[in-house]
Amino acid sequence: MIPPHFDVDINRFLITNKDCRIVFITSGGTQVPLEKNTVRFIDNFSMGTRGAASAEYFLRAGYAVIFLHREESLKPFSRHFPNIFNSLTLDATGENVVCNLPNLANILKEKLKYEEKIFYASFKTFDQYIERLEHICIHLNPLESRAMIYLAAAVSDFVVTELPTHKIASSTELNLPLSVAPKVIERVVNSFVPNAFIVSFKLETDESKLIPKAKAALNKYGHQLVIANMLSTRKQKVTLVRKNREDGEEIILPAETMNETEIESMIIHRLSGLHQEFIESKF
Amino acid sequence: MIPPHFDVDINRFLITNKDCRIVFITSGGTQVPLEKNTVRFIDNFSMGTRGAASAEYFLRAGYAVIFLHREESLKPFSRHFPNIFNSLTLDATGENVVCNLPNLANILKEKLKYEEKIFYASFKTFDQYIERLEHICIHLNPLESRAMIYLAAAVSDFVVTELPTHKIASSTELNLPLSVAPKVIERVVNSFVPNAFIVSFKLETDESKLIPKAKAALNKYGHQLVIANMLSTRKQKVTLVRKNREDGEEIILPAETMNETEIESMIIHRLSGLHQEFIESKF
Repeated sequence: MIPPHFDVDINRFLITNKDCRIVFITSGGTQVPLEKNTVRFIDNFSMGTRGAASAEYFLRAGYAVIFLHREESLKPFSRHFPNIFNSLTLDATGENVVCNLPNLANILKEKLKYEEKIFYASFKTFDQYIERLEHICIHLNPLESRAMIYLAAAVSDFVVTELPTHKIASSTELNLPLSVAPKVIERVVNSFVPNAFIVSFKLETDESKLIPKAKAALNKYGHQLVIANMLSTRKQKVTLVRKNREDGEEIILPAETMNETEIESMIIHRLSGLHQEFIESKF
Repeated sequence: MIPPHFDVDINRFLITNKDCRIVFITSGGTQVPLEKNTVRFIDNFSMGTRGAASAEYFLRAGYAVIFLHREESLKPFSRHFPNIFNSLTLDATGENVVCNLPNLANILKEKLKYEEKIFYASFKTFDQYIERLEHICIHLNPLESRAMIYLAAAVSDFVVTELPTHKIASSTELNLPLSVAPKVIERVVNSFVPNAFIVSFKLETDESKLIPKAKAALNKYGHQLVIANMLSTRKQKVTLVRKNREDGEEIILPAETMNETEIESMIIHRLSGLHQEFIESKF
């Protein structure tokens, strides 16, 4: 079920931001319930760090951002302060709360500055993700090349087809038949927003398969770009694999800047340039 | 792997609190990884609300609390303010952060008051949960009846026995063979802390099975008490099912107090009394 006012709110957001480029970011993992009255899930690991960090850099690069995130996953700006409560103290009177985290005022200023430039929507299950993604894409399709789709969510690959109504008894052995989930990106590229600039992610743990799989995805779906990354080094290195280019383009965070810089700042800088080229090539 | 200093720290905590009753609360859900280099999990739904709320009432009732929780699940006191960042504002100078949430100062005062009375430990996977639970129980066993074990965590019923090393390819059908997980409570009651006051939970979605299953668990494991609750009404009603008593004892939160009172305040009040009777019966 789409939340009430969802379409009206997106529409208003797109009208307010009609003069800038739009990026639609998906972030966090989807859940697949194992039961209808649901207690247990198959879940995908993701705090949503990539998506939340990217949203900040897109805002700074002048984009308006639609941020479709898993409930409870990280959000831009607040992600820097996961545990504010434990850093709070009381002043000398014992009545007033004091909040002295380094950099908090600066990040808060940025958050307030971009408040009108970001639209939040959330999901929990795979089915909600698909439904909301499709709705948002319907609104973005008329924007054509001005819209970038940035699919950073960790989407379930498998779904459970026949759900038991009640909690599965835990005294018996269980064989869980899983089916391959429909590939969302196929519908995004071919039906939902065929003229947008579409970026997907490929996350692997086996290095030898990473680039071949990224290329296979580009060939299969025909979108613009795959960001390939290894689970273990995803914060230091990614490879941009582009349509009709043989060689991947590596983005590597210099070791000496690891503590002050995030790789997403470099990724979004490059993507913003490529997106601009893409827009100009359409005229 | 047990964190460094874990045993030393627990020991110190128990010595500091040698004059009060101890409750060991487990809280939140456990994860079972589907792969070794792990991206996907079977997860149990739980924010850890029951465990975190209970911890507060146990502290107020004079207990020292060992709180073994799922990473990122709710914690006592901070649970009331899940989203502090979004309520922050800047003062007129634009340089100082202002935090004006209702009741924040009072809850913060309580948190500071009980800081020495609570010991935090965390887990993520099923295996970590078992390992840490066992370690903590080893320290609690000498306390005999003075220790209460309050097993509120949502523990995995199934485990995946043979894990693939790399991410499962998502292009193939998959049949996931799951085995029944070892029942933790069996070892808690019979091996780890046989003389403690042990409370477990039974959560169901099918009302007709709730009380029979709670009784079956008591008969099978021989511990003191099962708190039976339905997923849909768990915040309004629980039934205490006790050893050697035919009838369950219902605890129902009066509808008119729903907004000011939590059912955990009633549960812990009752448990504290039953625990005291249990201690006295041992002399």
